[in-house]
Amino acid sequence: MTLDHGDPGDAPSIPAPTAPVVNSARPAAAEEARTIAASTNTATLASLSEDGTPWASFVTYGLLDGLPVLCVSRMAEHGRNLEADPRASIAVVEPNPPADPLAGSRITLAGVVELPVGDEAAAAREAHLAAVPAAKYYIDYSDFSLWVLRVRRIRWVGGYGRMDSASAEDYAAAAPDPVVPSAARAIEHLNADHADSLLSMARVLGGYPDASEAACERADRYGLDLRVVTARGVARTRVGYAQRIDSADQLRAATVELARRAREA
Amino acid sequence: MTLDHGDPGDAPSIPAPTAPVVNSARPAAAEEARTIAASTNTATLASLSEDGTPWASFVTYGLLDGLPVLCVSRMAEHGRNLEADPRASIAVVEPNPPADPLAGSRITLAGVVELPVGDEAAAAREAHLAAVPAAKYYIDYSDFSLWVLRVRRIRWVGGYGRMDSASAEDYAAAAPDPVVPSAARAIEHLNADHADSLLSMARVLGGYPDASEAACERADRYGLDLRVVTARGVARTRVGYAQRIDSADQLRAATVELARRAREA
Repeated sequence: MTLDHGDPGDAPSIPAPTAPVVNSARPAAAEEARTIAASTNTATLASLSEDGTPWASFVTYGLLDGLPVLCVSRMAEHGRNLEADPRASIAVVEPNPPADPLAGSRITLAGVVELPVGDEAAAAREAHLAAVPAAKYYIDYSDFSLWVLRVRRIRWVGGYGRMDSASAEDYAAAAPDPVVPSAARAIEHLNADHADSLLSMARVLGGYPDASEAACERADRYGLDLRVVTARGVARTRVGYAQRIDSADQLRAATVELARRAREA
Repeated sequence: MTLDHGDPGDAPSIPAPTAPVVNSARPAAAEEARTIAASTNTATLASLSEDGTPWASFVTYGLLDGLPVLCVSRMAEHGRNLEADPRASIAVVEPNPPADPLAGSRITLAGVVELPVGDEAAAAREAHLAAVPAAKYYIDYSDFSLWVLRVRRIRWVGGYGRMDSASAEDYAAAAPDPVVPSAARAIEHLNADHADSLLSMARVLGGYPDASEAACERADRYGLDLRVVTARGVARTRVGYAQRIDSADQLRAATVELARRAREA
């Protein structure tokens, strides 16, 4: 991650915390990448055309242990490209992007595609069909092939100034976040009914004792992302739970504990 | 366009029209591509990494006479890629895709990127800012560059079995469809209140005298796409207006004329 931009643009400056951030635990880049990969079934493939130029094309995918499984036709340029040269990458953008597109999350997974064989071929077929039900209409056409992308390089961007790479090993070992996909309602409830608790969290646990407002922007298995308003400007901070949680069901207890800790401090 | 698939999959067969389709006028591939390019401000870029592998990455863009104007940082891999090798393509997917992702519309625009100079640099900056207002915060950082993609190859896919290429000349000369982006409400009204007229159109003008239901799926400057239900199965057909229209305001008159023609035939 680097923020070493050149000449400043028009971006407002972001106020720094004036007290320690008590627990800034958050998902690692490999976990973020697995979460984004699991959040949708469409991506853009970059493959190499006959003349060596890069070809961007819309594709659908399923996931087999985090590896994208594509189903593409040899009658399409990208299908011919993969047959001729297995080097490929896909970009996946998290659904429901914010109004400012670059504030959203996305990943690039790069590597080489391979035709799965034996047990893996059956598993890849199931994985693709589970993610893309309409594929049942064409997956068995003889011009379509299933390709597994053996991921070697992972780049995650979580919005402005939040980005990192992950190794293939870390990506393989990581799990998609079990809280993120089902947290929308809980976040709405926190913001609607517990603004006072969020403000205490921001002041006491999040490093912004001068906060006048706080709203939850995301909940994941490690904690909450808070948007904090101060007289010095708007900032983002983090309040980590006492312990990692493993399902959205545990979110309520974890946030109650955060609120209690903020109140009693 | 080719439909010469290999062994059949599970796709239901599509009933052919049993009468002439009176006017099947529809946008050319170049117009479809311009329409999709104008429908959003996000795309995926395919560039070449240092080792010659294809790198897919999320980007924002504006349009200068239909040419994508990117604004990317040299601190990001895709920015370094474009500086080292200008060969690039972008894939754009029409927003609000259908439940079956491959039934939606998308394009690939391939060519080489160039740093605009002089008047074009100013115009490119304006074009990008008009499409991506948040770019005002970083467009003047010295690590960001504006790139114009000189489009040489255009591939349009309008869903299953609807696809074509367009030349760079045709793409440059085409205009985005003025009706498509603002037709949603009119289509809703047609389907809700004029199902009988749509059914007559499908029977008399669309080649399906055995239609039992018809719904409008799209309106563009040349006509309507209808989804037709028959005892033989579900099909899509086309009813072209008497004349091309040049704005959404003319849609009502054009569809009234279609309904009249279908009724009087």
